[in-house]
Amino acid sequence: MKTVYTFGGNAPHDDPRQKDKTVTGGKGANLAEMASIGLPVPPGFTITTEVSVQHLNGEDIRPQLEDKVADALAHIEQTVGKTFGDAADPLLVSVRSGARVSMPGMMDTVLNLGLNDETVAGLAKVSGDERFAWDSYRRFIQMYADVVLGLDHGLFEEALEIAKEDKGFYADTEMEADDWKTLVAEYKQIVQDELGEPFPADPLDQLWGAIIAVFASWDSERAKIYRRLNDIPANWGTAVNVQAMVFGNMGDTSATGVAFTRDPATGERAYYGEYLINAQGEDVVAGIRTPQYLTRAAREAAGAKPLSMEEALPDAYGELARVFDLLERHYKDMQDIEFTVQQGTLWMLQTRTGKRTAKAALKMAVDMVEEGLIDEEAAIRRVDPMALDQLLHPTLDPDAERDVLTSGLPASPGAASGKIVLDADTAETWAQRGDKVILVRVETSPEDIHGMHAAQGILTARGGMTSHAAVVARGMGRPCVSGASGVSIDVKARTLRIGGRELKEGDTLTLDGGNGQVMAGEVPTIEPELAGDFGTLMEWADKHRRMRVRTNAETPEDCRMARQFGAEGIGLCRTEHMFFDAERISAVRQMILAEDEKGRRKALEKLLPEQRKDFHEIFEVMVGLPCTIRLLDPPLHEFLPHGDTEFEELADATGYGVDHLKRRAEELHEFNPMLGHRGCRLGITFPEIYEMQARAIFEAACDVRKESGEAPLPEIMIPLVATKRELELLKALVDRTAKTVFEEKGLEVDYLVGTMIELPRAALMAGEIAEEGAFFSFGTNDLTQTTLGVSRDDSARFLAPYVEKGIFARDPFVSLDIDGVGQLVEMAAERGRATRPDIKLGICGEHGGDPASIGFCEKVGLDYVSASPYRVPIARLAAAQAALKA
Amino acid sequence: MKTVYTFGGNAPHDDPRQKDKTVTGGKGANLAEMASIGLPVPPGFTITTEVSVQHLNGEDIRPQLEDKVADALAHIEQTVGKTFGDAADPLLVSVRSGARVSMPGMMDTVLNLGLNDETVAGLAKVSGDERFAWDSYRRFIQMYADVVLGLDHGLFEEALEIAKEDKGFYADTEMEADDWKTLVAEYKQIVQDELGEPFPADPLDQLWGAIIAVFASWDSERAKIYRRLNDIPANWGTAVNVQAMVFGNMGDTSATGVAFTRDPATGERAYYGEYLINAQGEDVVAGIRTPQYLTRAAREAAGAKPLSMEEALPDAYGELARVFDLLERHYKDMQDIEFTVQQGTLWMLQTRTGKRTAKAALKMAVDMVEEGLIDEEAAIRRVDPMALDQLLHPTLDPDAERDVLTSGLPASPGAASGKIVLDADTAETWAQRGDKVILVRVETSPEDIHGMHAAQGILTARGGMTSHAAVVARGMGRPCVSGASGVSIDVKARTLRIGGRELKEGDTLTLDGGNGQVMAGEVPTIEPELAGDFGTLMEWADKHRRMRVRTNAETPEDCRMARQFGAEGIGLCRTEHMFFDAERISAVRQMILAEDEKGRRKALEKLLPEQRKDFHEIFEVMVGLPCTIRLLDPPLHEFLPHGDTEFEELADATGYGVDHLKRRAEELHEFNPMLGHRGCRLGITFPEIYEMQARAIFEAACDVRKESGEAPLPEIMIPLVATKRELELLKALVDRTAKTVFEEKGLEVDYLVGTMIELPRAALMAGEIAEEGAFFSFGTNDLTQTTLGVSRDDSARFLAPYVEKGIFARDPFVSLDIDGVGQLVEMAAERGRATRPDIKLGICGEHGGDPASIGFCEKVGLDYVSASPYRVPIARLAAAQAALKA
Repeated sequence: MKTVYTFGGNAPHDDPRQKDKTVTGGKGANLAEMASIGLPVPPGFTITTEVSVQHLNGEDIRPQLEDKVADALAHIEQTVGKTFGDAADPLLVSVRSGARVSMPGMMDTVLNLGLNDETVAGLAKVSGDERFAWDSYRRFIQMYADVVLGLDHGLFEEALEIAKEDKGFYADTEMEADDWKTLVAEYKQIVQDELGEPFPADPLDQLWGAIIAVFASWDSERAKIYRRLNDIPANWGTAVNVQAMVFGNMGDTSATGVAFTRDPATGERAYYGEYLINAQGEDVVAGIRTPQYLTRAAREAAGAKPLSMEEALPDAYGELARVFDLLERHYKDMQDIEFTVQQGTLWMLQTRTGKRTAKAALKMAVDMVEEGLIDEEAAIRRVDPMALDQLLHPTLDPDAERDVLTSGLPASPGAASGKIVLDADTAETWAQRGDKVILVRVETSPEDIHGMHAAQGILTARGGMTSHAAVVARGMGRPCVSGASGVSIDVKARTLRIGGRELKEGDTLTLDGGNGQVMAGEVPTIEPELAGDFGTLMEWADKHRRMRVRTNAETPEDCRMARQFGAEGIGLCRTEHMFFDAERISAVRQMILAEDEKGRRKALEKLLPEQRKDFHEIFEVMVGLPCTIRLLDPPLHEFLPHGDTEFEELADATGYGVDHLKRRAEELHEFNPMLGHRGCRLGITFPEIYEMQARAIFEAACDVRKESGEAPLPEIMIPLVATKRELELLKALVDRTAKTVFEEKGLEVDYLVGTMIELPRAALMAGEIAEEGAFFSFGTNDLTQTTLGVSRDDSARFLAPYVEKGIFARDPFVSLDIDGVGQLVEMAAERGRATRPDIKLGICGEHGGDPASIGFCEKVGLDYVSASPYRVPIARLAAAQAALKA
Repeated sequence: MKTVYTFGGNAPHDDPRQKDKTVTGGKGANLAEMASIGLPVPPGFTITTEVSVQHLNGEDIRPQLEDKVADALAHIEQTVGKTFGDAADPLLVSVRSGARVSMPGMMDTVLNLGLNDETVAGLAKVSGDERFAWDSYRRFIQMYADVVLGLDHGLFEEALEIAKEDKGFYADTEMEADDWKTLVAEYKQIVQDELGEPFPADPLDQLWGAIIAVFASWDSERAKIYRRLNDIPANWGTAVNVQAMVFGNMGDTSATGVAFTRDPATGERAYYGEYLINAQGEDVVAGIRTPQYLTRAAREAAGAKPLSMEEALPDAYGELARVFDLLERHYKDMQDIEFTVQQGTLWMLQTRTGKRTAKAALKMAVDMVEEGLIDEEAAIRRVDPMALDQLLHPTLDPDAERDVLTSGLPASPGAASGKIVLDADTAETWAQRGDKVILVRVETSPEDIHGMHAAQGILTARGGMTSHAAVVARGMGRPCVSGASGVSIDVKARTLRIGGRELKEGDTLTLDGGNGQVMAGEVPTIEPELAGDFGTLMEWADKHRRMRVRTNAETPEDCRMARQFGAEGIGLCRTEHMFFDAERISAVRQMILAEDEKGRRKALEKLLPEQRKDFHEIFEVMVGLPCTIRLLDPPLHEFLPHGDTEFEELADATGYGVDHLKRRAEELHEFNPMLGHRGCRLGITFPEIYEMQARAIFEAACDVRKESGEAPLPEIMIPLVATKRELELLKALVDRTAKTVFEEKGLEVDYLVGTMIELPRAALMAGEIAEEGAFFSFGTNDLTQTTLGVSRDDSARFLAPYVEKGIFARDPFVSLDIDGVGQLVEMAAERGRATRPDIKLGICGEHGGDPASIGFCEKVGLDYVSASPYRVPIARLAAAQAALKA
C-alpha cells in the first residue's frame, strides 16, 4: 500500500485512497481533490495516517520512507521549478498535520522550511525583499525550535523584545533587514546554548525533523485532551502534508486575493472578490493597504482607479476565471477561495463553500436549478430554513449608523423604531394617536398583550428566548429584544437607564430583533422583498415534505397572515389571550372571584357571546381546515387586578370591598404557578368554564357552517392532562355540550377531542390516555420545563453559563432536547399509536418552528408541526429537508 | 356438575367447588366455609353462578332446578325444625345475590320470604309479638313488590305516609300491630291495582319469583354501570343464596349480640362483646337499650348488674365459647362476629377479621406467635406499619372532652397543647422562658425552623400533607395540622379566627396530628408506651427484610433519635436548614448579595467553621455508618430578609443601603422557584459554595476519624442533576476538594459522590449519569412534582377533588404514583445498573416512609429506603413485609 501520495503538477490523483480522509486526512484529501480537478494547487505530498500509527507503535519510520520522500520532493521541485536547498532560488515547504477531522490549533505546523544562511540570500534576491527573507528565516527558526526541537518559545520572544528595546522600537514592523539578520544570529546562539548543538542547516535534516515532530504532536497532552473531549479515537493517527510555499509578494507579477464564485450578498452570478499586487494574504486581511477589484466591471461600477486584476494581470485572471468554472462544476455550489499569484503563476490555496446572505442563498439555489447544476432536492437542502427569517421581516439598513446602547437576546426577528413607552396602556393610547411606539417592560405578562399589539417592537429587561414577551412577539411578528439586563426601568420617574445613559418615555429607540441590539434614535430600515425565488423554493419544499404545517394563532389577523405564509390549519389557538380584552376582563374577574358555581355561571354568560365571536371570526378564515383550540390553561390569578386603581375599579364593578378582593387575590397566589391550579385542573374543579368554551366553539362552528356551507374542523384540546381520567371526564363534558348545541342548532359539525402531551406523566401514560384522546399535540415548552425542571421565565440566570460549559448544547427551549425530552415524545408517540393507530400527532411548542426539532418530528413520524405565523415558511422548508433526509 | 349446594346442619361441605367463589360467589363460599368448620350457621343453599350464566343466555332455569331446590328447602326445614308455609310455625327465608366480588348495594335481596295471611299469624304466635309479625309482613310485601314484581316503591311509601298522617303519627315506631295489618291490606290492593293480579300467597311461588329476580338483577342498569367502572366481566354471573331467617327476639331464650375473640383495644386474650336478650341485631346497634356484658368477669369488673350472657344463657354461651376457639384455630386471627340466639339455639350470622388498635395488633401478633397459632412471618404481615405511628407519639386521652374548633390535614402524628404564638421568634422566646407553645402560621418556610423546633406543635392555614410544615414537623416528630383553611390569622392584631371564634396569641390550643383536629384549651394526652412487643416485632422484621433503612435527619438530636428507632445511616441530610441559624444567616445573606466571587468567598469563610461543626456532630453520632449529605439545594432568595426590620439589620451589617438590598432581593425573585436557580445549578454558577460545603464535610470526617479511630462514610449528593455533565463538573470539584483536605490533614476517609434522581430527565438519562455517580437517591418529592407537573405547595386547591373524582387513588405526595413516577424510578434503576452494576440505589423522598411505596422499592430492588426518624420503625416493618411478599 502506498504511504506517500504526491499532489499538484502532473501527479496522478486516481488512487481513491488519496481522496479518502481516513488515509490522507482531511487536508491531504482536500488538496488531492482540488488538484485532481485541475486546480493549480502548490505541489506537495501527503504521508498517510497508517505511518502515523506505526510511529505511535514506536517504529522508526524514516528508513521505509526515505526514498519515497525523496521522490515526492523531486516532484515538488520539478513542478515549481525550484530546488530544495538551492542557494540561488530555494524551494521552501510547509509541513502540516492533517487528521481525519479538523482539530483546530491542536497540532503542529512548520512554515518556510528549507531556509538557512545560504538559501536566505537566494530568497532575498528572488523576492527582491531582503527584509522579508530574513524575517521569514527568523520566524522559521523560532517555529522549528518550538515544534521540532522542543525549546521554550519564551526564550525567542524575550530575545526579540530585547532587540526592539535596544533599538527603541515598539512594533515588529519597525525592524529592518539588518535587525532581523542580527536576531537570527542570536536565535541560532540560543539553540546552540540550550541544545548543545547548532540549529540544523541541512534542509533535508530540517524536513525529517519536522515530519517526525508533526507525527509526534498527535500524542501531545493537549491533543489527547482534545480527543477525549471530542471522542476521537487515538488510533486514527494523523497524516503529514509537505507542500511548496508560494509567495504573492515577489514583485509586481505577484499578487494575493480572496474571491467568491458568485456575489455572496445578492447571489448574482458575477465573480466577486478583491486582490492586492505584491502582497501576502495577511495584507489583504490586515486592511493596511486598500484591496483592488477583481473585475473591470466591478471597478468601473465603483468608480475606482487602481486597475482590476482583470486589467493588471490578465493571464492570471484568465486562469482564475477558468478555476471558478471548474470549481462550481465540481462542487456544485458557490465557492469561497484564497489564491496567490507568484511571479505570474496562479496558485489556489484554499476553496470552501462560501457563506452567503439569506437572499443570496435563495437566489443561488433557484438559479443553480435553472442552470442545471443541481436538482430541486439539492436546492431545498441548501437553504438554511432559519435564514428565511431575515427575508420575512424588515431589517436595519446595514449602511446606517448605529448608536448601540446595549444588547439583549434576539428574541423575535425584524427591526423597528419608535417612542419609548413604559406600559401597555400608554402604548395603546399613543399608538391610537398615530405614534410609533416601542414597549419597554421589565418583563411582559398576558395583560400587556394589547400594548404589544399596539407597539412596533418590544424590549424587556428580563426573560429568555421563550419568555412571554419572546413567544408572543414572534407570534405577532413583532421584533423583540428580551433579557436586556443592561436596561433598568424607573416606572415612577418614567425613565430608563441603558448602559449608563438615561432616556425618558417618548425618546426614540431602535431595536434589532435579529441580533438583539438596542440603539438610540431612529435607524432606517429596509422592507423585505419576497422575491419570486422565495415562492419557487417554497413550492419545491411543499412537493417534498410529508408533515403538514400548521400555525399557532389566536386572532383573525394572525390566521390570515399564517395562511398567506402557507399554514394548513391551526395547531394551537390559545383561548386565554381572548380573556384579557379590556371589555371582558371585568367579567373574567367576576367569574374568578365568584363564591360559587352560580356566581361563576352568571359571569360566564357574559363571556359566552364574546368567545363565540372570537371563534366565529377565526373559523371564517380557516374554513375547511383543522383548528386545534386549547381550552383555558393559565392559573386564574393571572387575570386578577394588580394596582390599587384596578382593584378599586373591580370593587365598583362587583360590589365587593377592596380589602375582600385583595384577600381573595392573595388566597389565589401560588408559589409555583407553572405547576399549580391551571390547565385541565381548572376544567375539573370549575367544569362550567370549559363548558362555556366548548359551547362557544360549537355554536360558532355551526354558524359558520350554516353561513358558508363549509365547516372548520374544531379539534378541542384539553391542556395539562396527566391521567386518562382527567381526559375522560372532560371529553364527556365536551361531548355533552356538543350534543346539546347540535340539537339546538339542528345541525352537526365534525370535531375531535384530544390532549396536549406536556407533562412527563402524560408521555409515560400515553397508551392509556390515547383510549380517550383522538389526537396528541406535544406541548414541548411545558414538557421541557417539567422534564428538565427548568422554568423558562427563571432560566436566564443560569442558562447562559450552562450553554457555555457545554451542559446544554443549545437553549432547550429553542431547540428540543432530543436526548431527554425527545425520549418522552418518542415514547408517547409509540404508545399512543399502539392504542390508537390513527391517532393524530403534532407539535405545538415553540420547537415547531425550529429546524433541528422539526427534523426530530419527522423521524418520530408526527403528522404535523405548528409554528407561529412568521415561522410557517421556515417550518415548510425544514419539514421538506427532514423528509428528504429520511 | 352440582348446581345447588346446601350448607349448615348436617349438610356435607367437602366438595371444593362449594368453597370456590367463582362457583358459589363470595357469600356462598363464606357460608360454606363457616359451616364446614362446625359453626352453627342458619342453614340454606346456594345456586351456582353457572346457572346465572344460563339465565343470562335466556334459558328457562326453573325446570332443571325444581327438584334440587325442593330437596335443599327440605334440608333447611329439617335443620331448623320448621316448615316452609306452615301456618303454625313457618320457616322464613332470605334470598340474596352473591357475586365473586362484593358489589355493595348493586344487586337485590328479599327478606322474610314465606309470609302470607296464614303464616303471619303463626309468626305472631311463635314470636309472641304480633306487631313484629305484621311489620315483617308489610316489609316483605314492599320489598318483594319492588324487587320481584317491579312496582314503584314510591307507591308503598306514599301509602305508609298517608296511614301515619291519618293517625297523626310522626314515626314508624308509633304504628301498632293493627295499623300494620290495615296497611298490609292496602299494600295488597296496590299490587292488585298495579299488576291486575293478587300478591302471590304461595311461599313456593314467592321463592321462585325471588330467585329469578335476583338472577335478573345481575343485568340491571346500575349493576352494568358498576361492572364497567370496576372492570368486572359480565359473564361472571352471580350466585343466589337462600337461607333460613333467624330471630333473636322470640322471647327470653332468644338474644342477639356482637363479639370479638380478643380485646380489640388492648389485644388481651379475653372474649369481648355485648348482647341483648329478646332483641334484634339492629337493637344492639341502635343504642335504645343498653347492651349487657358477655362474660361474668367483664360484668363484675364494670360493676354492672344485668346478667352477663355467661350467666343468663349458659348453654348458648358455652356454644359461643366453643365457636370462638374454632374460629381462632381456623382463621388464625382475631374474629369479629355477629350472632343470634333463637329460642336457645346459637346461630352465627357473620364472622370477619376484627379491626383493632395498633397496640392490640402488636400484642396479638406477638402473642399468637407464642401460642403457636402463627409464625413470625405471619406476625410481620399482620401489623399495619402505619399503625405504629400511633404508638410512637403521645395521643389525646380518648375519654377527655374536646372543644373542636376546626379540622385540617393530619400532617404529622402526635398530640400537643400549648400557647398560641404567631411567629417563629416569639415561639423561641416564649419557649426559652419555659412556656409550651403551638406555632400558628399561614404556612411555614425554612426561616421558621427555629420556631418549629421550639414549639410543641405546628398549625398552618395552608399547605398539604407534604407542605414545608408537614415535612419538617414529621422529621422533628412534632405534631402538625396543616391546611386548616378554617383558620384565619391577623398578625397585626395578634389574633386568630377559627370557626367563628376569636383567639389571641397566648391562648391555649390543642392539636391532634393524628386526625387533624384543632381544639380550644388543653386536652390531656397519654404518653406512648413502647412495650416489649414492639421490640420483638421489630427484631423479627429486621430478620426478614432485605432493604436497609436510613433516616432523613440534619441535627445530632434527630440522628440520635433515628438510631434509637433503628436507622442504619443517613439517607438525606439537607444542608440548607443549617444556613438559617440566627448566627449564620447574616453571613449567608452577605454571600448571596456579594457582587462577585471574591465577596462570596469572604462570606463563605465565615460559614466554613460553622458547617464543619454541624457535620462533626452528626458524624460523631453516625460513626461507621453511611451519611448521604445533599449540597445546598434551595434557591438563594429563600434566605433573603423579608420584613423592613430584617432589611435594616442587613443594611447595617453589610453597608449596603436598604434600597439596594431590596432591589437585589427583587432581582432574585423567581416565578417558579421550584424550577429555578437552585440545586446543582447553584453549584455550577457559584462553585465556591459547594467547595466550602465539601471542605466542611471532609474536614469534619477526617477530624472524627482522628478522634474516634473510625470514620463515617460520607456520600456527597449533588441535587437536581438533569445531565451527566453537571455531575461530572461538580464531582470533579468535590474530588479536588477532597484531595486538598486529605493532603492538609495527612489522612483520608472513604467517600462517594452521587446524585439525586429527582427530575424526569435524570431518570431518562440515568445510564449516562451513572458513569459519573456512585449512587442514586430517588428524590421522589421533586420527581413527583415534575412528572405530574404539580407543585406540592399549591396542590391543596385541587388535590382533594382529584382524589374524590378518582383521578388520583391517593395523594401522590403521600403514596408514590407507581403507574407514572414509578416507571421513571424503575427505568432509572435499570439503566443505572446497566452502566454500573454495583450502583447504590435508595429513596429519600417522603415516600421512603410510606408502606405502599416501600413495597414498590423492594420490587424495583432498591438498596435502601430513608425516612424521617419517627417513620424509621414503619419503614423497617414495611420493608420486611415487602421482602416477604417478594
